Amino acid sequence: MSLRILHGDVVVDHVAADDRGLNYGDGLFETILVHHGQPVWWREHWQRLERGARVLGIVLPDEARVRREADALMAAQARAVLKLVLTRGRGGRGYSTSSGPVPTTILSLHTAPEPAPAAIDLRWCETTLAIQPRLAGIKHLNRLENVLARAEWRDPAIFEGLLRDSAGRVISATAANLFVRIDGVWRTPALDNCGIAGIARGWLLDTLPGVDVTVMGRESIENAEALFLCNAVRGILPVGGLGARRWRPDAATTDLRRRLAAAQPAFAFQE
Amino acid sequence: MSLRILHGDVVVDHVAADDRGLNYGDGLFETILVHHGQPVWWREHWQRLERGARVLGIVLPDEARVRREADALMAAQARAVLKLVLTRGRGGRGYSTSSGPVPTTILSLHTAPEPAPAAIDLRWCETTLAIQPRLAGIKHLNRLENVLARAEWRDPAIFEGLLRDSAGRVISATAANLFVRIDGVWRTPALDNCGIAGIARGWLLDTLPGVDVTVMGRESIENAEALFLCNAVRGILPVGGLGARRWRPDAATTDLRRRLAAAQPAFAFQE
Repeated sequence: MSLRILHGDVVVDHVAADDRGLNYGDGLFETILVHHGQPVWWREHWQRLERGARVLGIVLPDEARVRREADALMAAQARAVLKLVLTRGRGGRGYSTSSGPVPTTILSLHTAPEPAPAAIDLRWCETTLAIQPRLAGIKHLNRLENVLARAEWRDPAIFEGLLRDSAGRVISATAANLFVRIDGVWRTPALDNCGIAGIARGWLLDTLPGVDVTVMGRESIENAEALFLCNAVRGILPVGGLGARRWRPDAATTDLRRRLAAAQPAFAFQE
Repeated sequence: MSLRILHGDVVVDHVAADDRGLNYGDGLFETILVHHGQPVWWREHWQRLERGARVLGIVLPDEARVRREADALMAAQARAVLKLVLTRGRGGRGYSTSSGPVPTTILSLHTAPEPAPAAIDLRWCETTLAIQPRLAGIKHLNRLENVLARAEWRDPAIFEGLLRDSAGRVISATAANLFVRIDGVWRTPALDNCGIAGIARGWLLDTLPGVDVTVMGRESIENAEALFLCNAVRGILPVGGLGARRWRPDAATTDLRRRLAAAQPAFAFQE
């Protein structure tokens, strides 16, 4: 794993044991696809990081400084994943942030995942997402719910699991957002109470006219005409099954994948 | 800061950047008072850690091995705080825990806090705790809510803030549990939905007959005859004020503090 750690602007060798990211999950992260040495959607990832830092009151490091380190890691990488973790920095024992710490930035390079199947299979998770509007939408480091949900299955034939909040509203997969078509209209769950506002989801909302950002229950999903997941590493993932329910390949979803590949060649796919 | 880090049974120099504690808050912690070189309530802290590890499916390290490192750190410490962090260990990118990692244990020694005032002042926090029964009671590392709540005030005259859950039920302070006396009966909030089941709270439930573990709203608290906070580092902290509401010293609370000091001399106090 190629790695760079910044304490403020200064490169350091290790993450300190008193880093608040480790002690409280007091930080944020981004997972960025790297294609021919370049980050895909860098600006969008940085904007989400900025939004999260504002919500948590974390000092944002200098973007150009971080990008310089990222560029050094990404150079000569045909395809990879760059993970960026930003924490509030080191801090004493205790929740108080009054010491005004210098943020920690951790950049690490990972192998790109194997291509997903042409249509993926999903399951329903039992773990529910707690309702916490103050943290909804941002990609913070408090991710035990995702860990517990992902631990519910080992069957490699199941690609992802769908999560509901504690009120039964469908929110997302464990590591992807969800779009469904009902009565010819694309819909995606509102993320005011929990969930992460994904970068690929953002691209789709900007690109597709009239997406309905709304509340949906389990039945709406199972009765949908088509279903796909999306995230910034995988792009658009057509769903072929959810439990016993099966879907045929959907022409409109294929068309969306083509548009995404045209906008971001990193998401080219085998038709 | 004196520090020991174990990767499984092996002492290592640093926490790895891919530790799941740092990346997802995928772990637990304990904050243990050290008195004359000895940990206070070690067994109770270890038992809570065990409970948390079971909930999260984290491998528990060998207690004797961890205790040996703790003893080395605590030796010759008249008074200090030992923090123990246990994480699921190192892991690749992604929420899946399938790699079955070796746990990371981090032991660090900290200065004991200054004694609290004879009666402390509280405030109400605006940040609410999300309802998540699967994680309630255990002392996991997903603590952004506590961080946000503690960041609500800077006034050093306010010692702690009280938190409610998203349904308005009073749960705890940011870093302490809460006991109140109403109609002559001691009550403490039920922690089935959120909050941390503190070690001092556990001692009080074992010691005091007939404590009512119950649901209380803001008015119940403000109308109580007496109020105190408790945690494993501070013991029992009588409350003198909550916003405009003031309480006089309470004989029954003083008596409880005496009983605690008799059971655990580390909690001796100035009468």
